[in-house]
Amino acid sequence: MAAEGLFNRPLSVRLRGPGCQERRLDVRVNIELLSISNPVHRKDLAVRLTNDADPFFLYNLVISEEDFQSLKSQQGLLVDFSAFPQKFIDLLQQCIHEQNKDIPRFLLQLVSSTSDLDHTPVSLNIVETNPFKHLTHLSLKFLPGNDAEIKKFLANCLKCLKEDKMILEEKLKKTEEDLTRQLSYTQQ
Amino acid sequence: MAAEGLFNRPLSVRLRGPGCQERRLDVRVNIELLSISNPVHRKDLAVRLTNDADPFFLYNLVISEEDFQSLKSQQGLLVDFSAFPQKFIDLLQQCIHEQNKDIPRFLLQLVSSTSDLDHTPVSLNIVETNPFKHLTHLSLKFLPGNDAEIKKFLANCLKCLKEDKMILEEKLKKTEEDLTRQLSYTQQ
Repeated sequence: MAAEGLFNRPLSVRLRGPGCQERRLDVRVNIELLSISNPVHRKDLAVRLTNDADPFFLYNLVISEEDFQSLKSQQGLLVDFSAFPQKFIDLLQQCIHEQNKDIPRFLLQLVSSTSDLDHTPVSLNIVETNPFKHLTHLSLKFLPGNDAEIKKFLANCLKCLKEDKMILEEKLKKTEEDLTRQLSYTQQ
Repeated sequence: MAAEGLFNRPLSVRLRGPGCQERRLDVRVNIELLSISNPVHRKDLAVRLTNDADPFFLYNLVISEEDFQSLKSQQGLLVDFSAFPQKFIDLLQQCIHEQNKDIPRFLLQLVSSTSDLDHTPVSLNIVETNPFKHLTHLSLKFLPGNDAEIKKFLANCLKCLKEDKMILEEKLKKTEEDLTRQLSYTQQ
């Protein structure tokens, strides 16, 4: 299985649940296109929601081409599966563009059926607010990651972070060497 | 609950299982003294085995003062609970001291009841080899971590690594600034 990264950024979302005040949360949205060749060749769209400040926050959605057909008919979408990822990213970009405004025209909502995000499915909604009403452009349902999925996700984060740290250590060493050499050369 | 770190180092262990060749593995041994005050004040000794190269490798052992009494009688130990951690560390230090020798006098064995370390309990043995026999100084039984425990452990590693990375980034920035300033000063 090969994964092609399409989008990976933290976005400000508004968290809503029954009986609790709306609050803001930075949620990292990761979108990947998975190429699976066994048993038949197909592509799945994998969307992951995480929170850089909370290692246990993990929600997943995988949309196959078949899943997309029902999503398309349910939500009256007019694009096909191949065009959907870019359209989704365009909508997220519009939310980013508006996220520091007092009254954003586009915003991301994360809606939970419980008052705290306690291992229940959540919906990620992209909502446009115009003078007349709230228009939901897209609503995607995510499942909370179980312990095994969170464990796998954290192991991968750890691997990437170790690589970053190693690169940084090498860069520090090289910077010190370079500048010390230049300095001693200049002082001569 | 407060934790006092007593030992945290990777050690070379010899992995043994039924029907498989002995192989070497670097296992990080972490020893902590946990102070628990609720419902009554007590101290537990927590030992954790991990592998820096395998994020899913996790084995735990928690020894309470009561557990220690049965361990003491089973293995004929002559120290009491308060002296045990240091004695255990002394034995590990002897293994470290000998681990690069062809014929080490002290070595660590990790014995599994299955051919691969597949979520089954393991025994960590500290074995002295003299011309006559193998003497097991200590044998401790560890339970494999479940997904929830591995998840918690990885989240903590990630937290520490993020802090390390931040310190390193600051150091790099400071080094560049310092040396660039010195350089421009020298060149004037």
